[in-house]
Amino acid sequence: MAGGTSEPGRSVLDRALAVLGSFSDERPEQALGEIVAATGLAAATVHRLVGELVAWGALERPARGRYRIGMRLWQIGSLAPLARDLRDAALPFLQDLGAITGQVVHLVVLDGHRALFLERLPGHAEVPVRSRVGRRMPAHASGPGKVLLAFAPPAFVSEVVARGLPRMAAGTITDPRELALALGEVRRAGYCLSRDEMTDGAASVAAPVVGPSGEVVAGVSVVVPSSVENLQPLVPAVRLTAAAIGRALGAGIPLSARRT
Amino acid sequence: MAGGTSEPGRSVLDRALAVLGSFSDERPEQALGEIVAATGLAAATVHRLVGELVAWGALERPARGRYRIGMRLWQIGSLAPLARDLRDAALPFLQDLGAITGQVVHLVVLDGHRALFLERLPGHAEVPVRSRVGRRMPAHASGPGKVLLAFAPPAFVSEVVARGLPRMAAGTITDPRELALALGEVRRAGYCLSRDEMTDGAASVAAPVVGPSGEVVAGVSVVVPSSVENLQPLVPAVRLTAAAIGRALGAGIPLSARRT
Repeated sequence: MAGGTSEPGRSVLDRALAVLGSFSDERPEQALGEIVAATGLAAATVHRLVGELVAWGALERPARGRYRIGMRLWQIGSLAPLARDLRDAALPFLQDLGAITGQVVHLVVLDGHRALFLERLPGHAEVPVRSRVGRRMPAHASGPGKVLLAFAPPAFVSEVVARGLPRMAAGTITDPRELALALGEVRRAGYCLSRDEMTDGAASVAAPVVGPSGEVVAGVSVVVPSSVENLQPLVPAVRLTAAAIGRALGAGIPLSARRT
Repeated sequence: MAGGTSEPGRSVLDRALAVLGSFSDERPEQALGEIVAATGLAAATVHRLVGELVAWGALERPARGRYRIGMRLWQIGSLAPLARDLRDAALPFLQDLGAITGQVVHLVVLDGHRALFLERLPGHAEVPVRSRVGRRMPAHASGPGKVLLAFAPPAFVSEVVARGLPRMAAGTITDPRELALALGEVRRAGYCLSRDEMTDGAASVAAPVVGPSGEVVAGVSVVVPSSVENLQPLVPAVRLTAAAIGRALGAGIPLSARRT
């Protein structure tokens, strides 16, 4: 099935998916040469593939020789049931949490070994945050990420640790033993406080969303300036929001079949 | 480059994109046979393609022989700059509009000849709406859709009319001349009132978002029960929201290069 001779062993589709996968939050728009470098494919192959992808609408060509993800792929991607059902169930409660606290609110799931921001509502305050819908960040450095790790199988946490715990900010937990203690505390308390871990200047309160099958399916957080000394007053609000989302999920949205 | 003999003239990538394109809001999960029927491809071809798409994460297999769009495609799709930049600029203002009116709020763009819901914030009231993020609906039957048609080139509106004006609800404009009058009124007034056009029981106020280059890039609307007789009090709020989004776009988010 390999459609060409330059990269034997990789199918045409595999190469096209590699082209799509070369786009990221850090590189939302790329020149042909950047795609070539990122995928390791021959320039002629990339040229032909991007032509087909542009024709279908998976990519757009904002300027000659430059490419970005197209609306058609956004539209097809928005059909993903896990993201869509979870967001539909969560959004009213996230909005209430944002309105009452006036702060940035996040809904986060695990995607591979990273924390994926499924939703981010802007706050009224100016807290520096790295989050963006669709962005993937190291799970150990984010409040909701730590919540998800705390309730994940130990083998999974070991894999995350084995991949390294990069420092993102002054307070990032980079020591595996310290992380294990922190995750144990999250399990015991049922919520997670973070300060200067993902971004210097930002603190957060995060809590787990429990799906209908009893497993933790997402983390919810509120982000405040790390100058806020006492985070405890936010804890009930974040936990109640997470609980309300869990109830909405239990009321009929099928997440139990989400594993392939 | 066609990788196979069963469908000469269609490349492997073209066939894989047809598989992805067979998923829709109405069919977010499909059995293999449904994909075969929708794409017109051979069953063996579809079987092989979905295997590769599942391996990459573009599709997920929630149950044996059933497929749906995967999180990986959601994540890649979320990088589309037009959707992302417009949503980032609009969301704070849409939230304010939702908080002040307590109603469902929409952000809509044109996608081909249809209205695509880029954002939908839930309201506190129980108005029946058909909208969902990522759903495409007939433009002539939606308030923001009519706003977008009103400011689109006449040739484009003719194409929409030529494709037919299906009735969606009791008040849908199905007559081309009546539509032309309505669009003229939208251009004159700068906003659009609708009642029972997309959904029986729902009325809306919609206004255009003008991008940095002076063109209308989106429509914003608030949906209320059609039992609300006087929609005028909502008009300034919707127009101000649309204007605020336009200002935010003008403040640096590059939509002017959005055409391929």
